Amino acid sequence: MALLVEKTSSGREYKVKDMSQADFGRLEIELAEVEMPGLVSCVTEFGPSQPLKGARITGSLHMTIQTAVLIETLTALGAEVRWCSCNIFSTQDHAAAAIARDSAAVFAWKGETLQEYWWCTERALDWGPGGGPDLIVDDGGDATLLIHEGVKAEEIFAKTGQLPDPTSTDNPEFQIVLSIIKDGLQVDPKKYHKMKERLVGVSEETTTGVKRLYQMQETGALLFPAINVNDSVTKSKFDNLYGCRHSLPDGLMRATDVMIAGKVAVICGYGDVGKGCAAAMKTAGARVIVTEIDPICALQALMEGLQVLTLEDVVSEADIFCTTTGNKDIIMVDHMRKMKNNAIVCNIGHFDNEIDMQGLETYPGVKRITIKPQTDRWVFPDTKSGIIVLAEGRLMNLGCATGHPSFVMSCSFTNQKVYVLPKHLDEKVAALHLGKLGARLTKLTKDQSDYVSIPVEGPYKPLVRVWSGWGNMRYWSSYEVDQILVSIRGCCSLVLRGCFMFCFVFPF
Amino acid sequence: MALLVEKTSSGREYKVKDMSQADFGRLEIELAEVEMPGLVSCVTEFGPSQPLKGARITGSLHMTIQTAVLIETLTALGAEVRWCSCNIFSTQDHAAAAIARDSAAVFAWKGETLQEYWWCTERALDWGPGGGPDLIVDDGGDATLLIHEGVKAEEIFAKTGQLPDPTSTDNPEFQIVLSIIKDGLQVDPKKYHKMKERLVGVSEETTTGVKRLYQMQETGALLFPAINVNDSVTKSKFDNLYGCRHSLPDGLMRATDVMIAGKVAVICGYGDVGKGCAAAMKTAGARVIVTEIDPICALQALMEGLQVLTLEDVVSEADIFCTTTGNKDIIMVDHMRKMKNNAIVCNIGHFDNEIDMQGLETYPGVKRITIKPQTDRWVFPDTKSGIIVLAEGRLMNLGCATGHPSFVMSCSFTNQKVYVLPKHLDEKVAALHLGKLGARLTKLTKDQSDYVSIPVEGPYKPLVRVWSGWGNMRYWSSYEVDQILVSIRGCCSLVLRGCFMFCFVFPF
Amino acid sequence: MALLVEKTSSGREYKVKDMSQADFGRLEIELAEVEMPGLVSCVTEFGPSQPLKGARITGSLHMTIQTAVLIETLTALGAEVRWCSCNIFSTQDHAAAAIARDSAAVFAWKGETLQEYWWCTERALDWGPGGGPDLIVDDGGDATLLIHEGVKAEEIFAKTGQLPDPTSTDNPEFQIVLSIIKDGLQVDPKKYHKMKERLVGVSEETTTGVKRLYQMQETGALLFPAINVNDSVTKSKFDNLYGCRHSLPDGLMRATDVMIAGKVAVICGYGDVGKGCAAAMKTAGARVIVTEIDPICALQALMEGLQVLTLEDVVSEADIFCTTTGNKDIIMVDHMRKMKNNAIVCNIGHFDNEIDMQGLETYPGVKRITIKPQTDRWVFPDTKSGIIVLAEGRLMNLGCATGHPSFVMSCSFTNQKVYVLPKHLDEKVAALHLGKLGARLTKLTKDQSDYVSIPVEGPYKPLVRVWSGWGNMRYWSSYEVDQILVSIRGCCSLVLRGCFMFCFVFPF
Amino acid sequence: MALLVEKTSSGREYKVKDMSQADFGRLEIELAEVEMPGLVSCVTEFGPSQPLKGARITGSLHMTIQTAVLIETLTALGAEVRWCSCNIFSTQDHAAAAIARDSAAVFAWKGETLQEYWWCTERALDWGPGGGPDLIVDDGGDATLLIHEGVKAEEIFAKTGQLPDPTSTDNPEFQIVLSIIKDGLQVDPKKYHKMKERLVGVSEETTTGVKRLYQMQETGALLFPAINVNDSVTKSKFDNLYGCRHSLPDGLMRATDVMIAGKVAVICGYGDVGKGCAAAMKTAGARVIVTEIDPICALQALMEGLQVLTLEDVVSEADIFCTTTGNKDIIMVDHMRKMKNNAIVCNIGHFDNEIDMQGLETYPGVKRITIKPQTDRWVFPDTKSGIIVLAEGRLMNLGCATGHPSFVMSCSFTNQKVYVLPKHLDEKVAALHLGKLGARLTKLTKDQSDYVSIPVEGPYKPLVRVWSGWGNMRYWSSYEVDQILVSIRGCCSLVLRGCFMFCFVFPF
Repeated sequence: MALLVEKTSSGREYKVKDMSQADFGRLEIELAEVEMPGLVSCVTEFGPSQPLKGARITGSLHMTIQTAVLIETLTALGAEVRWCSCNIFSTQDHAAAAIARDSAAVFAWKGETLQEYWWCTERALDWGPGGGPDLIVDDGGDATLLIHEGVKAEEIFAKTGQLPDPTSTDNPEFQIVLSIIKDGLQVDPKKYHKMKERLVGVSEETTTGVKRLYQMQETGALLFPAINVNDSVTKSKFDNLYGCRHSLPDGLMRATDVMIAGKVAVICGYGDVGKGCAAAMKTAGARVIVTEIDPICALQALMEGLQVLTLEDVVSEADIFCTTTGNKDIIMVDHMRKMKNNAIVCNIGHFDNEIDMQGLETYPGVKRITIKPQTDRWVFPDTKSGIIVLAEGRLMNLGCATGHPSFVMSCSFTNQKVYVLPKHLDEKVAALHLGKLGARLTKLTKDQSDYVSIPVEGPYKPLVRVWSGWGNMRYWSSYEVDQILVSIRGCCSLVLRGCFMFCFVFPF
Repeated sequence: MALLVEKTSSGREYKVKDMSQADFGRLEIELAEVEMPGLVSCVTEFGPSQPLKGARITGSLHMTIQTAVLIETLTALGAEVRWCSCNIFSTQDHAAAAIARDSAAVFAWKGETLQEYWWCTERALDWGPGGGPDLIVDDGGDATLLIHEGVKAEEIFAKTGQLPDPTSTDNPEFQIVLSIIKDGLQVDPKKYHKMKERLVGVSEETTTGVKRLYQMQETGALLFPAINVNDSVTKSKFDNLYGCRHSLPDGLMRATDVMIAGKVAVICGYGDVGKGCAAAMKTAGARVIVTEIDPICALQALMEGLQVLTLEDVVSEADIFCTTTGNKDIIMVDHMRKMKNNAIVCNIGHFDNEIDMQGLETYPGVKRITIKPQTDRWVFPDTKSGIIVLAEGRLMNLGCATGHPSFVMSCSFTNQKVYVLPKHLDEKVAALHLGKLGARLTKLTKDQSDYVSIPVEGPYKPLVRVWSGWGNMRYWSSYEVDQILVSIRGCCSLVLRGCFMFCFVFPF
Repeated sequence: MALLVEKTSSGREYKVKDMSQADFGRLEIELAEVEMPGLVSCVTEFGPSQPLKGARITGSLHMTIQTAVLIETLTALGAEVRWCSCNIFSTQDHAAAAIARDSAAVFAWKGETLQEYWWCTERALDWGPGGGPDLIVDDGGDATLLIHEGVKAEEIFAKTGQLPDPTSTDNPEFQIVLSIIKDGLQVDPKKYHKMKERLVGVSEETTTGVKRLYQMQETGALLFPAINVNDSVTKSKFDNLYGCRHSLPDGLMRATDVMIAGKVAVICGYGDVGKGCAAAMKTAGARVIVTEIDPICALQALMEGLQVLTLEDVVSEADIFCTTTGNKDIIMVDHMRKMKNNAIVCNIGHFDNEIDMQGLETYPGVKRITIKPQTDRWVFPDTKSGIIVLAEGRLMNLGCATGHPSFVMSCSFTNQKVYVLPKHLDEKVAALHLGKLGARLTKLTKDQSDYVSIPVEGPYKPLVRVWSGWGNMRYWSSYEVDQILVSIRGCCSLVLRGCFMFCFVFPF
Repeated sequence: MALLVEKTSSGREYKVKDMSQADFGRLEIELAEVEMPGLVSCVTEFGPSQPLKGARITGSLHMTIQTAVLIETLTALGAEVRWCSCNIFSTQDHAAAAIARDSAAVFAWKGETLQEYWWCTERALDWGPGGGPDLIVDDGGDATLLIHEGVKAEEIFAKTGQLPDPTSTDNPEFQIVLSIIKDGLQVDPKKYHKMKERLVGVSEETTTGVKRLYQMQETGALLFPAINVNDSVTKSKFDNLYGCRHSLPDGLMRATDVMIAGKVAVICGYGDVGKGCAAAMKTAGARVIVTEIDPICALQALMEGLQVLTLEDVVSEADIFCTTTGNKDIIMVDHMRKMKNNAIVCNIGHFDNEIDMQGLETYPGVKRITIKPQTDRWVFPDTKSGIIVLAEGRLMNLGCATGHPSFVMSCSFTNQKVYVLPKHLDEKVAALHLGKLGARLTKLTKDQSDYVSIPVEGPYKPLVRVWSGWGNMRYWSSYEVDQILVSIRGCCSLVLRGCFMFCFVFPF
């Protein structure tokens, strides 16, 4: 590939769009820090002890201003960091430039091709001949996937001498993955094995990535421990619910300037993301219709005054369609053909296969008119009517806006760090953010504490559940978790240990 | 005691306020049935097989119109039923009359004294010399408590010949409990032991009752299995969140006719009940201030634009105070003294000790003016200013209004019955209510089902957790639960078995 | 008629349901005073000067607790008062009892027949041989109507000797009116002429009553001046919008205990009343559909996310129907036949002809089952399915609940009094209520005041419009209004003068 | 000045930022047309008759995509158009390019200096030696102001030979105005007189511009008729209320990416703009505090649960400050000094003097850091803390976002055209937008129409008020207005006549 790594004057590698945007990025990072009290408090509290001293961290996570604050929190705690984005559209180029210049190795820009995307991922994982990172901060699981596929290919190669064959698959993206592994294999046939050896674990941010991990765990394919950050309350509720409530209208407005009031918005899925999206659309004056498979979620939607119908019932009447399911094949090209002229179709769930982009792209005679980057009008030849697809079916809040606001990401990101002791858990993350918002907590009296059997200092949700897999789970008490954390990898700092288990740690 | 049991022409026992209200009660029961599709579906589906044939069920649960529909569902499934209320103010007398006349033994009226209350509880438990009920439907745990205390006293008596001594406690309510047990002991020294022997288990509706059960479990004092209905989503979310969102304003308006818009409302606690209350007050136009001990709940309140402060910060500025904590000593008499004239103080949490009623009643020189039943103005001698206390500090939605609406209670009550197979769980309860609201669910395709590893028919939340106690828990898979259910008490029908475990059974 | 006037020990006339409820009424009046700062301030400010000394005031306005505070404000300012209700269901009997005992002549009880209703109206107008009241506080215009019809009949009688003939009309209510006039004529053939002579004017509270006045004005039939209180902002916005937002759910819950969340509610009309109703239903979790004739109001509904359809489109799908139009024939019996079983039908607009009660009552084979007073189930013979009609089609917030809360009524009622000087207007009414709600106003600087040409002390809306009729209007400046007020009826106090014009006085 | 007019190949003048953005602009104009059914319907209905044939129209109104659709509506109806923006930041450069290339003479770009701004205004008014435009579409009144000042200066020059002296004023912007007039005078001493002679009238969009017109009218200085578009319901409610509800969060998010939930937002002023802003902030999860001078507006805020305080009360606690008053000196530099670090300060009212920008700019030692265009951080030397000021204190929704969405502007702009017959009025504008939103209106029956005295076809609000000035007003009936419209300027088409009166025409 023609892509060349560049180096800063201090010799740190990077590949970004435009280094001259570093000053602008720095200004916005400084703004964001004021909005991210959780991360800033981590630096204040843990910085002096340098708990991440010597740790190598690779991140595959949207390279935004908020992520920049996370990266600089990690480096302030002593870590070395290499970073790529986990989405071809989600990088903010000024953020990437500032970090590349000042803090860490970055390989990311807005509008990567798929080929460039995987090149960046491989670069972020490559720490040289000594093996890979100690820790991966993954979002969607692509970095984790690359290592697993790499190890698999290396094993086959060791046994049979056979290189991976990109033509063995129809999936164009997987062809690229195989090519990259093939290239690596020819240079170092133990490259991914070395990574696996060094790796203490991965922390995963998303529902989708977590699901992948569970599936690997179930089949015994999982090569290293993982921690599910997605399911802590301060991540899932804040990132999914409040974050999407903020960023769906943001993305819609930036991409289309459409008036939301008076429109009919269909939200596919009513989990936390869907709840946030539906709330945003409703309060902006849209009429919201929900599609759901789960009767409990459906009943919750009804209790908020939202209609629950199938996509087929409303496809030709609605103005805005947004997928939030984490499942595939939600809006198919046959749905899109029946939509009103200029209906808006977007995805805030996870992968771009929630929307049948392939069906759309290959529809005979369909015409794509790019209004502006990440805003395309697709015109069907038979009806001459067009629909607006945002971010090419990928995450519209990252592609069309700037992702979640700093405050939300501070809640999510502080979780990376805060699993020192499980009893603090989420509650510590939440508490770190209250001062900024002027809140004052009530304290339990000793007498009340006894009455409800909850310690004065918390945790206020009594139960910690930890398990080692989806089908085959086991639960420990909060005390057991402490013991387990202590026993893992004595060489790691306590702070790191919190992240390095394949477990859920969250309040009941 | 001078209370006399009456009998219907068919010989069934009862004690209600006014049998002439039975027709009125019947009309409202018929109305409520239309609103309770879950229970009605249970009768349609399970009625013919009479799964509860021969079972004796005692209920201690607010004797409302909605409960009447539950009782008649149980009798339609074959059970015999005896009932009392679990709150001195919560009985609807026309509901009690209709049930007493038509379906079951009822001992309940609005405005019982504490002495009358415990007499009713004892009556509901007394199935004659053959022992007590097979199943208790408990709410708050008073029926469970009476049996436990009874067994304890019988044991002491058996060993030492000593009768319980009501003067041994300062608590006036507990004095009554001891008196009743003492009276029973003198008639039959094995009365409560027989009950315990026969009892297959108890299902408990409330957080508070569940907590008591856990505490007994932990100390080894729990005498029989129990099922926590409180924590199923269709109970906790619907009853607590949506139910209180409905019934807090209802109770306020019936009791005081106060304009909610423009007022400052303090909601103590921001769990599910608090969330429902805060939403109701906010949407009615009040400014809402939340008090919390838990930083995560506090952050959730802030994300909805609510202020989080301590009670002390706002005690002299707010117009409405509502406790939702499940803890005691939330609003003390010293708070009440500092409130504005005619500030409203009420409790929708659980026991009346959320509000310091004792402190209020014994405040020197305080004057109580009863505006109407369950609405009292208490005037402080020093300031001459008064506060309005609803339902004497007990649950205001039951004391001042009519409790949760039928639709909500249908969600809660259907849970009593639905634990046939855990994989149906909550989802079945929810699904039974969707038709009534005109909702249409989306179906997973086989392909999507594989992609997300969720069966087409559900359950959509993959995990079932079952445990046997608070501190000492264990979890089983959905399959294990099935096995356990099958193995318990072969003599019981499958339907009953679902209820008769001391376990949580709820979706992840 | 067999109705007999009773007398208090001091000789004041009354006819109420139950005098023993006077103490209860007094307690609730005292509560309401705290919620009605506008009226209480009037007493404080104007009481010492007794501006209404010697004035006779007749009121025809819902005899509620809030009206009781109004009546006692009038008597505190020096007036003598006689009162009836303007709706057969709206009286609160304890309020009537307290006023009858303590303050004024009252003829009103909950559940009057139409015959009793008009007897009460006639009693309230009858001040003995010296003629009628100086001022009428009218709501819906029935008192005004009676005088106009009386004068008309007297004129015919004077010319032709002919008495009014009740059989000359099909309208059963108008038959009663004619009977009463006929009876009066036979006693005193100048009774209504004397009333007209003495009467300085009427203040009218409702849109409907105002419309009647305009129609009489246009045809030259209006016999005395009138003031439209309905269209001041503190009346129309507060009473209509905020009042109905409060009292629609209140009435629904008291009458039916139905869960509003999840239901489909149809609001017929989207004026101020409809806006309040729709907001209440939406925030309680219902899905709201609006019917409208006016495209501007329709567009406003759409901007709030509400669907705008015709009644026919949704009649068989909705759960709750509420008319708010002020027009007739909105929900016809043919609509009602198509509704779901137990659909709720109610009216919060004005007259009971918004709902086709006559069509319902005369539907062949229809069966009426009274659940409780003001809550009827009507079952159609063909479908066996029934609908719930509230308050017999009359105002459900008065029939099923207790009308608007005190705070709202304080805004409306203070208008009765406050038109001393038009420049104060509504703004004074509003300002009197701010302190209670803890608000702090900003003051214009002199410089800002000049910049926007608004006086520092207000009025903040620059225009005062006054006119003398609907088709034939004329407008005066604020200054002119002052002059006119001063010139009318020198014998009246300044306070009264504000009320005694046929004019709108409200801010632009 | 060094600015040079450019010409298209067809010879039409223009001055825009970048003609290569014309294609992008065209795509977005086509999108916007789908959202602007009112304007598109005008072209369909009136296009064939070319009612504006031969009319010259000058516009001074934000040169956005939505305005582009308005301009092309005007040209489709036959007019020739010259355009400038009315705000130095509000131009969308791609919109300007598309219009300049395809439809009209445009002089506008984002980020004009004040000198450039007035140069553009003068260019838009200059139609060559034959005088100025027939009609001005003004927004804020700057085009109107320039003609008035020009005429004044020409009169002085004619009498005394004296040229205007820019140094006679301290106001830097007015110095520029005088310079431009001075330059013009030296070329053609009758330039502005000729404009005035030709001009049939001006339509004014904003409250501020309308106020200026009234002040000129009152002093007799107004030189030509004007029509107030601002006060039609479809303009004021939609543009002000719904438009700002949409665009305040849009601007905040684009400029700062700040999380709105959890923040304290102060909205200065609670008129229609303030109501829209407060609703947007509240529903996004902020806690909203309102400042007001008018007690009625204050009471409305309280009824929505908003706190009403003075700016001084909250200046150091709030996170976001937004002015909406139309008055000056709302947020002074002394307020800004006391704000929290990174508090956001913005104006969505009208002129930039709502915020004391001059005080800020001249504060000793203050440091301005431009994060990005229209987003500045101002750091105070004493506290080292900074505030974020948006759009340099000018309209933030235009400076930081893209102004109101197309749908709202379609409501506003269609008013330009629709005053053919006053009885259609606003209602026609509203009706033209209903179809797009899937609404179905209810029709009055003849019987209902008679009952409420409203024609079946509307207008549904019965009154039309027309007057000729603020202090000295007169009102006509709807019929009179028709007559007046017919009598004005027989040479103009009926469509134009609607616009060319100095009058309000709006429903009661």
